[in-house]
Amino acid sequence: MKNYIKTDEWSIIEEGFDPALNKISESIFSLGNGRMGQRANFEETYTGETLPGNYIAGVYYPDKTRVGWWKNGYPEYFAKVLNAANWIGINIRIDNETLDLNTCTVTNFRRVLNMREGILQRSFTGELKNGKQVQVNSLRFCSLADDEAGAIRYSIKALNFDGIISITPFIDGDVKNQDSNYDEKFWDEVQKETGHDTGFLTLKTKKTGFEVCTGMKVDLFLNGDKIKFISKSVEKKKYCGFDILVPVVINQTLEIYKYAANLSSENHPKEHLLKNCKNVIEKIALKGFDAMRKEQADAWAKKWEYGDIVIDGDVSAQQAIRFNIFQLNQTYTGQDARLNIGPKGFTGEKYGGSTYWDTEAYCVPFYLATADAQVTKNLLIYRYNHLAKAIENAAKLGFKNGAALYPMVTMNGEECHNEWEITFEEIHRNGAIAFAIFNYIRYTGDGAYLQEYGLEVLIAISRFWAQRITWSDNRRQYVMLGVTGPNEYENNVNNNWYTSKMANWCLGYTIEALSTVEKADSVIFKQLLSKVEFNYKEETNHWQNIIDHLYLPEDKEFGIFLQQDGYLDKEQTLVKDLAATDRPLNQKWSWDRILRSCYIKQADVLQGLYFFEDEFNIETLARNYNFYEPRTVHESSLSPCVHCILAAKLGHGDKAYEFYLRTARLDLDDYNNDTEDGCHITSMAGTWMSVVEGFAGMRIRNGTLTFSPFLPEKWISFAFNISFRGCVFNIKITRGSVIITNQSLTSAEVFVYNKCYDIGPNEMIEAPYGAPK
Amino acid sequence: MKNYIKTDEWSIIEEGFDPALNKISESIFSLGNGRMGQRANFEETYTGETLPGNYIAGVYYPDKTRVGWWKNGYPEYFAKVLNAANWIGINIRIDNETLDLNTCTVTNFRRVLNMREGILQRSFTGELKNGKQVQVNSLRFCSLADDEAGAIRYSIKALNFDGIISITPFIDGDVKNQDSNYDEKFWDEVQKETGHDTGFLTLKTKKTGFEVCTGMKVDLFLNGDKIKFISKSVEKKKYCGFDILVPVVINQTLEIYKYAANLSSENHPKEHLLKNCKNVIEKIALKGFDAMRKEQADAWAKKWEYGDIVIDGDVSAQQAIRFNIFQLNQTYTGQDARLNIGPKGFTGEKYGGSTYWDTEAYCVPFYLATADAQVTKNLLIYRYNHLAKAIENAAKLGFKNGAALYPMVTMNGEECHNEWEITFEEIHRNGAIAFAIFNYIRYTGDGAYLQEYGLEVLIAISRFWAQRITWSDNRRQYVMLGVTGPNEYENNVNNNWYTSKMANWCLGYTIEALSTVEKADSVIFKQLLSKVEFNYKEETNHWQNIIDHLYLPEDKEFGIFLQQDGYLDKEQTLVKDLAATDRPLNQKWSWDRILRSCYIKQADVLQGLYFFEDEFNIETLARNYNFYEPRTVHESSLSPCVHCILAAKLGHGDKAYEFYLRTARLDLDDYNNDTEDGCHITSMAGTWMSVVEGFAGMRIRNGTLTFSPFLPEKWISFAFNISFRGCVFNIKITRGSVIITNQSLTSAEVFVYNKCYDIGPNEMIEAPYGAPK
Repeated sequence: MKNYIKTDEWSIIEEGFDPALNKISESIFSLGNGRMGQRANFEETYTGETLPGNYIAGVYYPDKTRVGWWKNGYPEYFAKVLNAANWIGINIRIDNETLDLNTCTVTNFRRVLNMREGILQRSFTGELKNGKQVQVNSLRFCSLADDEAGAIRYSIKALNFDGIISITPFIDGDVKNQDSNYDEKFWDEVQKETGHDTGFLTLKTKKTGFEVCTGMKVDLFLNGDKIKFISKSVEKKKYCGFDILVPVVINQTLEIYKYAANLSSENHPKEHLLKNCKNVIEKIALKGFDAMRKEQADAWAKKWEYGDIVIDGDVSAQQAIRFNIFQLNQTYTGQDARLNIGPKGFTGEKYGGSTYWDTEAYCVPFYLATADAQVTKNLLIYRYNHLAKAIENAAKLGFKNGAALYPMVTMNGEECHNEWEITFEEIHRNGAIAFAIFNYIRYTGDGAYLQEYGLEVLIAISRFWAQRITWSDNRRQYVMLGVTGPNEYENNVNNNWYTSKMANWCLGYTIEALSTVEKADSVIFKQLLSKVEFNYKEETNHWQNIIDHLYLPEDKEFGIFLQQDGYLDKEQTLVKDLAATDRPLNQKWSWDRILRSCYIKQADVLQGLYFFEDEFNIETLARNYNFYEPRTVHESSLSPCVHCILAAKLGHGDKAYEFYLRTARLDLDDYNNDTEDGCHITSMAGTWMSVVEGFAGMRIRNGTLTFSPFLPEKWISFAFNISFRGCVFNIKITRGSVIITNQSLTSAEVFVYNKCYDIGPNEMIEAPYGAPK
Repeated sequence: MKNYIKTDEWSIIEEGFDPALNKISESIFSLGNGRMGQRANFEETYTGETLPGNYIAGVYYPDKTRVGWWKNGYPEYFAKVLNAANWIGINIRIDNETLDLNTCTVTNFRRVLNMREGILQRSFTGELKNGKQVQVNSLRFCSLADDEAGAIRYSIKALNFDGIISITPFIDGDVKNQDSNYDEKFWDEVQKETGHDTGFLTLKTKKTGFEVCTGMKVDLFLNGDKIKFISKSVEKKKYCGFDILVPVVINQTLEIYKYAANLSSENHPKEHLLKNCKNVIEKIALKGFDAMRKEQADAWAKKWEYGDIVIDGDVSAQQAIRFNIFQLNQTYTGQDARLNIGPKGFTGEKYGGSTYWDTEAYCVPFYLATADAQVTKNLLIYRYNHLAKAIENAAKLGFKNGAALYPMVTMNGEECHNEWEITFEEIHRNGAIAFAIFNYIRYTGDGAYLQEYGLEVLIAISRFWAQRITWSDNRRQYVMLGVTGPNEYENNVNNNWYTSKMANWCLGYTIEALSTVEKADSVIFKQLLSKVEFNYKEETNHWQNIIDHLYLPEDKEFGIFLQQDGYLDKEQTLVKDLAATDRPLNQKWSWDRILRSCYIKQADVLQGLYFFEDEFNIETLARNYNFYEPRTVHESSLSPCVHCILAAKLGHGDKAYEFYLRTARLDLDDYNNDTEDGCHITSMAGTWMSVVEGFAGMRIRNGTLTFSPFLPEKWISFAFNISFRGCVFNIKITRGSVIITNQSLTSAEVFVYNKCYDIGPNEMIEAPYGAPK
């Protein structure tokens, strides 16, 4: 846990340079625009500890799997997001000494991430070993308005000398992934060219053959006047740049404008990459830095208009929630159904930048409520497009007849994970993908999604469950053997309640969806069934039979759903009785000890109660919450949010707030000592959920927004915007009232504490705060 | 499955050279003497497919662990047997063309492993590209009489030319392990020197710092006359050798005698290694090849005198059983308690050459019956010497108070394995180590072993069980959660009957052993308890409480012990109904599918019934055998022997013979297509057990040898020697009678089909064949 980030409502601020914190800051101050992103590395040379990171969405490398003991069925490779060409680089030499924060004396260092406008600023005074002092101000962004483009303004003022500043703007593609399994480099050079003020480098990924052309153009200003310059090209392997010498006198300021673009063969024909990149570079350089910066601010203003949360009375919480929303919007913009949300976004390499069930379980609710429906729809279509691969994946594991098992971790639809207890057994992910379809339709009302895409996915998933669930002669019931639930501190268990419940729900929802589509369009319905060779009667009968006879373990004595067979055979101790020296368990205990214990990593039974809350009464929720939460160590960043929401529902406001705090500043305060690897992007959606579904108690019921808010004691008020079926609502919760403004042109019904309010266009209602007794 | 080895009672024979079989033959024709060993690589250059292998017992390298996903508690390294300096090498050039079976035309190739004398012979005619033809005969051995020494006689006859044969005898230490995790070389050079006819190379292992000095001396004979020669030294990195040019005329034969020695710092002070190696080389060169060869034949004759099995009427079975006995004796001679039995012995790298529970469960019975008691005692002392490490290992996993968990795989007592479901959970190995103590004392009558070594080990093991077993409030019984039984096709199961039964027995045996030692010597007893800080009353009370209330799952309906909780919830199908295309499961099915199935890799419940057979009546055995065997795929080479023994006991002679056949020629016929990696040394002990405990029904009951033989239909008779408490018995089973000869000087009681016979010194008894009805 660190505490060096200065609080501010709209900015993330670091003051003073501490090299030991640099990799953490590189993560926190990361930039992205959904198409590309980068860690907050320095433009100039830095020989201290750094994790260089530039990433291009959708461009990956299949790194050969590394395991100790191969298990049949393991994938051959792990698809990794690539550390791509560094396009921010500008080497600076002052009278032949390199400017390097690792070797010069640094004062007045300040790094600011302006979240309102999506801009990274940095300033410092450096004194080199040769005594020369410079004042540096840099400002850069990845353009949200033009997501192939980025720009930098880097200014150097000669504080105490006349001399030569030599600068080398460059693109360096000779980079590596830190997590390369066999210490390989993943890029080959295709082409490079250096002009007087431009450079273009095209690289191609090994094996996958993605090509990315990175271009740059440089303008120089001295004391505000554009200057001409002579440049000398510098070309090395996978590197292009040029040296420029600029004589300066004391107090003069040299400004370097570096315009850059990354174009990938995912969006351009390979043969036009270079040409198109040149066009983009020409266009943005012509547009100019200030115009680009204005576009950037405007684009971010729109994001905030939809998705902001305003907290009054707690600047630290305000900063934290905006940071979470900001990073989510940097990571995924929903314009491209081939892209998804890596657990670290563009802030690091870890977890390969691949897609997990985090997307469906945690991110979908965020994007549903803060963006156009198309954004979430693209997340769903991403899985639809991977259906054939999911069917292949299941076939590899012995499943037949078009059954689909979506991968635990994927880039292009193929499984990348290689731990048998996860890869093969943590199959509840299939359920989350079905649930996201349900959730999307529930939220948006876009029922047509079923016949367009959803039903096919649901059928394939249900076919999987129908084979994965087997009949036990012994129990005279269906059982689901050998699974790992969301609580990964149990492996290879039988009849995990969550997974079985999820499967059961999937089967039922698919039967319902079949009937919905049949009613909506019987021609399309028939085409669809014929496409997937669906034997309606036989398959749905079998599914119904499973629904009716699936074993869902319960314990009558405790009145709880049982996490899995045998859970109560464990020694029943509570987290509060664990010694501090034993925490976190995953660092202090051996794996078998964790597995044998009753301790729970993250919501498991409770995750099911969260998803299917309407099926259970409040007493059932309370019994299960009271049993499981005290056994839960919350050693996943995805755990607290679900508990926060349930605690809020159960009226445990303090506890809910406590859960909220656990993730709100997870990265800002480097809570788990791992922020240097990157930020926990997907868990940020959970923090958002904590506020909106937890504190504000937002739900969709029968196509209507409902709220049961509570206001954490420490706050004066909080407010947020919600995009719902074409309307935007602003909801503000104060100590006295719940104020809802309908910012759209149609009137809408909204429930507050189960009371219905009709809100006209651009009207506001004010409901009393607090649930009626 | 291959079928290229010619059958012969005493020899393994390969005729004709097939490069595709070379790596298999390199394994099968391996040599060893317990201290060092080697694959049957060629002396001369070979550029075809080969796995070079020279190994020095007890000299290992801790290779950095390679895993996909680190689990807390994993060991940092995997100790590997090292591919050591090649001391057999003799490069041959005929008029400047290298003799290489990969490039010349080979005829009359014949490779013979003379098992009676422990000698590897090879002969062939080679025609080089330059048209020169040579006849080569080589003969070599690792001396059993002098286990640091080896010798080679390599003769070349010029068949069709006058010319120059240039030879380069060398020692090459610039070798690698094929299974090196990070492609490292494990040896550094310490010293080398080349004399006129000698070479010495000392290498040191990285990290572990073992030093091995390898020496050689060469004599040359032309047409039977020793010749003088001029040599020119050749030194490279980790390599020493010398070139000799010998002019020959047609039909002359050049004989190269190469004497070699490997001395390790395990047995010599490092500073004397070179000097001592020179002494050994001087000594054996002086002794001469023929004298060494005679010693070798004599030493092997002694091994056969104790341990031979003679099968009449089936040459293939005869060859197979002798091959198994031969390899076991090559691998372990029992003279050094620091050594143990790697699953591949000196025949390959796989499984790291480390120690597994195979030793206690399968090898101990073999060495007990075919060698002096000290041999097995050394195997036991090996574990005694590792007790402190086993206690450390348990402490790493959270166990306290001197509890010991012996490693799954080890070289020096530290755990090397890194699969959580095995490393942390396949804990029944602890029981096998306790059982071996019991078995040793039962066989040898050496009760003093308990107070000398055994009790301390038993206490530490019982302390482990007492903590690993936990109380279940739910069941009101003790349970053992999260284990993997011998059937590794189930992972992380609860209440594996075998493991729990084993633990229960351990606790009881330790209580009994405490009382035995107390009675035998109360002073030593007190010292011992004080040494291990044993709280007699409290600890034994707790143990007894576990013994009395441990949950051992049974199914009343089937009348069987239940492999584990939930086993009957699986779909109950039988191996006979599996499609051939699904076999072997471990190659055809994904791991989760194997885990969910009811199929059993190797004896699990039945392993327990084998160990504790006297506790169960024949009907119980039959019910369990009839239930479990049809569900067993025998995909471990350790599986068939236990089933053979039980089938024999149940009177299923045909089935028993079928099981015997599955492992008897496992390597000779390359049954599993993996002999090229090395031979299955430890399973060879299982084959021996099949004959002696299975067919001959040998048991020790109340300190007496008992037999209930049956003779496989295909055989005319079989006979074997058994060493038992100072006596050697020869047992011969024919269709008509069981003939037992007491080859010793004291009379002894022996039971045949439960009838007691008293056999005087050097007397013979003849019992009728067949159990009385």
